[in-house]
Amino acid sequence: MWLFFGFGGLCRLRKHGSNCPQLAGELKYFCNASVIYEFAGHRGCDTARVNDYGLSYFDDYVLGSTYECGSVSIDQASIIAFAKEFDPQPFHVDPVAAAAGPYGGLIASGWHTAALVMRLLVENYLAAESSLGSAGLDELRWPHPVRPGDTLRVRATVVESRRSLSKPDRGIVKTVVEAASQDGTTVMRAAAINFMLVRPDAGA
Amino acid sequence: MWLFFGFGGLCRLRKHGSNCPQLAGELKYFCNASVIYEFAGHRGCDTARVNDYGLSYFDDYVLGSTYECGSVSIDQASIIAFAKEFDPQPFHVDPVAAAAGPYGGLIASGWHTAALVMRLLVENYLAAESSLGSAGLDELRWPHPVRPGDTLRVRATVVESRRSLSKPDRGIVKTVVEAASQDGTTVMRAAAINFMLVRPDAGA
Repeated sequence: MWLFFGFGGLCRLRKHGSNCPQLAGELKYFCNASVIYEFAGHRGCDTARVNDYGLSYFDDYVLGSTYECGSVSIDQASIIAFAKEFDPQPFHVDPVAAAAGPYGGLIASGWHTAALVMRLLVENYLAAESSLGSAGLDELRWPHPVRPGDTLRVRATVVESRRSLSKPDRGIVKTVVEAASQDGTTVMRAAAINFMLVRPDAGA
Repeated sequence: MWLFFGFGGLCRLRKHGSNCPQLAGELKYFCNASVIYEFAGHRGCDTARVNDYGLSYFDDYVLGSTYECGSVSIDQASIIAFAKEFDPQPFHVDPVAAAAGPYGGLIASGWHTAALVMRLLVENYLAAESSLGSAGLDELRWPHPVRPGDTLRVRATVVESRRSLSKPDRGIVKTVVEAASQDGTTVMRAAAINFMLVRPDAGA
């Protein structure tokens, strides 16, 4: 389900759920005064090029800025499917064993949570035209379990932003990423390190 | 494909590739003098209970010990499929765009690499009978890209091992996890924090 609502003067396009909506194929060009949202017709929103905040290049990631990156719900079937492929521990794949286990029920693999969070960052925070990938994370924590039916809200805050000394065409952005469940409980926290191209006309 | 070969006096059962082999369903009980390998017949190796090294409880994770955790190959189709769901950046999902991009070709999402590594840890290192999940990681790095056709070898080293002060039934194991490609290049490094039950007869 997609919800449209105003946010800080920009028309926000927010995605709820992890699957690309059928609607996306029809939203070829959806624009307002300052941002063009472009969606390719094939494979839903896979190639969305400009995020809602107009974050395009390194220069746009201003120290201290916080961005709400939307939300995603997680259900039991997807928890089990992911974990059977990548993290087949009893409390991720077997509802009966999980009920008698340390969490009193099925919980999502932390890697599943991280992957869902990443999806929202790609859609709402990382600029496709300048993202050069990630060196990794300085910290990754799962302080509370994620359970079937939870809806996670993701927020990204720029905590470090500096030009590369060795490669002047890029900068390093460090981001604290937080995911909270519907009751406000933090379920994931990470400090990610990303490389981004500087704006071509920004000079060396 | 499964390969059997001797290793330090133990018969090693090593998995190559990320999918559970059909063979696994037939290996109901495979044992030697010191270790029992048990595989449930349904859903391949999802419910393997005892890992190759006989790591069962916190007490078995000895500081400084290193464990080879097998290997996994990654192909272009799986790289694209994972990334389309979780990390749809051009250099993960679009071979043409990737060829012109910063890596000169398609590379795997770091989260895909991490998930594949996790699978090998669950199968070869984390004890199903005592694993209580993970608090997270102190560090996660992807120093070199993973490309289609790469085969990653995973190694786990216990770098910290201490009993919990507040919950005497468990201990905290910190593990440095390293994944290297076929030419020895490190493609992932992590410091994971896991909670494990102490052996029931070990006392408080």
